[in-house]
Amino acid sequence: MVLKSFIEVHPDSHFSVQNLPYGVFKPHPSSAPRPGVAIGDYVLDLSEIASAGLFDGPLLNNSDCFNQPNLNKFVSLGRPAWKEARATLQKLLSATEPTLRDNANLRQKSLVPLNSVELLLPVAIGDYTDFFSSLHHTKNCGVIFRGPQNPVLQNWFHLPVAYHGRASSVVISGTDIVRPRGQAHPTGDSPPPFGPSLKLDFELEMATIVGPGNELGKPVDINSAADHIFGIVLMNDWSARDIQAWEYIPLGPFLGKNFGTTLSPWIVTLEALEPFTCDAPKQDPPPLPYLTEKVSKNYDISLEVRIKPAGHEDSCVVTRSNLKHLYWTLTQQLAHHTINGCNLRPGDLLGTGTISGPEPESLGCLLELTWNGQNSLSLNGATRRFLEDGDEVTFTGYCEGNGYKVGFGTCTGKIVPSPP
Amino acid sequence: MVLKSFIEVHPDSHFSVQNLPYGVFKPHPSSAPRPGVAIGDYVLDLSEIASAGLFDGPLLNNSDCFNQPNLNKFVSLGRPAWKEARATLQKLLSATEPTLRDNANLRQKSLVPLNSVELLLPVAIGDYTDFFSSLHHTKNCGVIFRGPQNPVLQNWFHLPVAYHGRASSVVISGTDIVRPRGQAHPTGDSPPPFGPSLKLDFELEMATIVGPGNELGKPVDINSAADHIFGIVLMNDWSARDIQAWEYIPLGPFLGKNFGTTLSPWIVTLEALEPFTCDAPKQDPPPLPYLTEKVSKNYDISLEVRIKPAGHEDSCVVTRSNLKHLYWTLTQQLAHHTINGCNLRPGDLLGTGTISGPEPESLGCLLELTWNGQNSLSLNGATRRFLEDGDEVTFTGYCEGNGYKVGFGTCTGKIVPSPP
Ligand SMILES: [Ca+2]
Ligand SMILES: [Ca+2]
Ligand SMILES: [Mg+2]
Ligand SMILES: [Mg+2]
Ligand code: NI
Repeated sequence: MVLKSFIEVHPDSHFSVQNLPYGVFKPHPSSAPRPGVAIGDYVLDLSEIASAGLFDGPLLNNSDCFNQPNLNKFVSLGRPAWKEARATLQKLLSATEPTLRDNANLRQKSLVPLNSVELLLPVAIGDYTDFFSSLHHTKNCGVIFRGPQNPVLQNWFHLPVAYHGRASSVVISGTDIVRPRGQAHPTGDSPPPFGPSLKLDFELEMATIVGPGNELGKPVDINSAADHIFGIVLMNDWSARDIQAWEYIPLGPFLGKNFGTTLSPWIVTLEALEPFTCDAPKQDPPPLPYLTEKVSKNYDISLEVRIKPAGHEDSCVVTRSNLKHLYWTLTQQLAHHTINGCNLRPGDLLGTGTISGPEPESLGCLLELTWNGQNSLSLNGATRRFLEDGDEVTFTGYCEGNGYKVGFGTCTGKIVPSPP
Repeated sequence: MVLKSFIEVHPDSHFSVQNLPYGVFKPHPSSAPRPGVAIGDYVLDLSEIASAGLFDGPLLNNSDCFNQPNLNKFVSLGRPAWKEARATLQKLLSATEPTLRDNANLRQKSLVPLNSVELLLPVAIGDYTDFFSSLHHTKNCGVIFRGPQNPVLQNWFHLPVAYHGRASSVVISGTDIVRPRGQAHPTGDSPPPFGPSLKLDFELEMATIVGPGNELGKPVDINSAADHIFGIVLMNDWSARDIQAWEYIPLGPFLGKNFGTTLSPWIVTLEALEPFTCDAPKQDPPPLPYLTEKVSKNYDISLEVRIKPAGHEDSCVVTRSNLKHLYWTLTQQLAHHTINGCNLRPGDLLGTGTISGPEPESLGCLLELTWNGQNSLSLNGATRRFLEDGDEVTFTGYCEGNGYKVGFGTCTGKIVPSPP
């Protein structure tokens, strides 16, 4: 029988009692930030639950991990503590448990309407890495930038290619994105054109939030890598294609990416995603031993991108994709990242790379959808090659359970004009 | 007349009263970390000086910026506060000022022998960026990796090329560096070879420590960029050339770099470096307006790299270079970094890129010195193409004043073997 909560959760809600994703919020603008979990249309304030002594398991009963302005301490504690917290919260919220259900005072203090709170970044991000793990995206980018011969480079099939991103400009869903200015490729002997980017794009990604880290010099074994992953979020890796194309050789993307990266507020845990695992694609050539997993799995997470064009009332779906399209798994990404001894820290962010699927309707960015602006996209009357000022881009994602959803909420951002 | 301190400072010491570089240290292994400045063979404990009420200027008299485990708060205060601190400390340490000189109790508490303290990273680094600003280095790398035709790409002359590095693995001078393992380029159809890097290298760099940051979406004007620079340090951007060469196309260096980056402990301020400015090289083509400075300057800082080969008693100089060889200035780097709206935060680290000069004896890494291992380097009897386990690499740098030095101390690290 499906677990039910005493809090009414609509079957379409992303935040079922099976989900219980973690975030950080302020109940009032003047309150201190604190951790919470989303349940239906509410946030459960974990600092209040902790103060009430209801985290009574052996690992959490004396911890101050929920009296913190972010989740870094909690995610550093590791899977046994995460499982204990989940068991405590699922019991506390279940329909048959009176502790919270029948305590009006505690309900009043700890259950805050979701639509009244301010959501903040759930973790302090030490470092942000972005992978490039969808074969479809990689192939499309290769054809667009280098032509149809050999669009996927040889190294791509042997290692999960990645680069370092910028942690300072990672923002929470709802934050406006200022259109970046920069240089683009010159024509002939003219100086490079300079100004607001003319090829502003989104990238549909998800991202791992790292749990316990590893010491510098001590790689994480591939078969333990899952224990270093707390959960995942939606991520929009906004990209300025004209800036990127001019700057990125030979050291990779820089100003074309680091003006902003948007995260969804709720971290969905691997425990909540466990029922939605699926086989990872067969890898040929076979990966080296340090990337070979006993069990190699992906997650079946339906993803959707909508654009609400400037001045329009309605948004329009531009892509439907799925996390299961990744070639390199989240655990392979993490093991590869540490094989040289690189240390991860709790709260680090590992983006998957743009999640494009095989079909034309499942491409994860405008670069692919409009083939670098060659074609235009029709959006209920508006047309777009790239994003215009005032456009709002929203990602959603969820797993479909039997009568419930495990969802990620939304990851949204609106483009505002460059400074003069 | 040259300012003298009541503390004896040998003319060869890097830490004259004209210098007063900032660091963070523990007087005893069990003490809390605190800020200090180096003077001769001592560290002046700034938490003690602050507790004694001796920072009595208007900006610092009520600040707790020296009762912190790092310098982030102090560097965030900006140049007026930095100038006030410098004036206070130069007066306090001068030969003619009795306050500290004649107070045995305060001297005892606040002056700690340098050789007895543990030095820590001076700032908590939010993000680390590495530039590529020496034309000599860029040209040599281009020839080595792509051949003598067109070794410097067109974009390089229009913008200071950079990539994001890894903040978590930045370590303080003296920390051992574990040889990274990883994949290298396969031969023919074989799988990529995997194991400890066979081409481990150093890169002679310096790095800016960012002072006040900027808000996301608000670029820093080129002519205000210097006010965002607190000071500079020596930096060794350890690099595994075999890992790097296989992984870096198309998204840039990743595991070939992020296993460790070493900083010297003392941040030398721009105030202390002001007497050692020199003209920056003329830039042709002229930079775009956002990179055009009213005054464009470099710093004349002599740099030296020594290697002490494993099992040997003595070290051997392998390179003498100078920061003045940079094509792109530190202020151009910073302005470029923010032109798209990217936000910098106090304590961020901006590496210059390898500082190679024009002569064969001034090349800043083994890749250039041995031409990617084609030639070997003779080190007093030992020979090296790349670094071996047990090798110790030490950078030093200083400016030569009239009867005093403004120096950076040393930036050192020893290679230890990969894990089995
Ligand atoms: Ca991306
Ligand atoms: Ca470098
Ligand atoms: Mg981004
Ligand atoms: Mg490095
Ligand atoms: Ni010898």
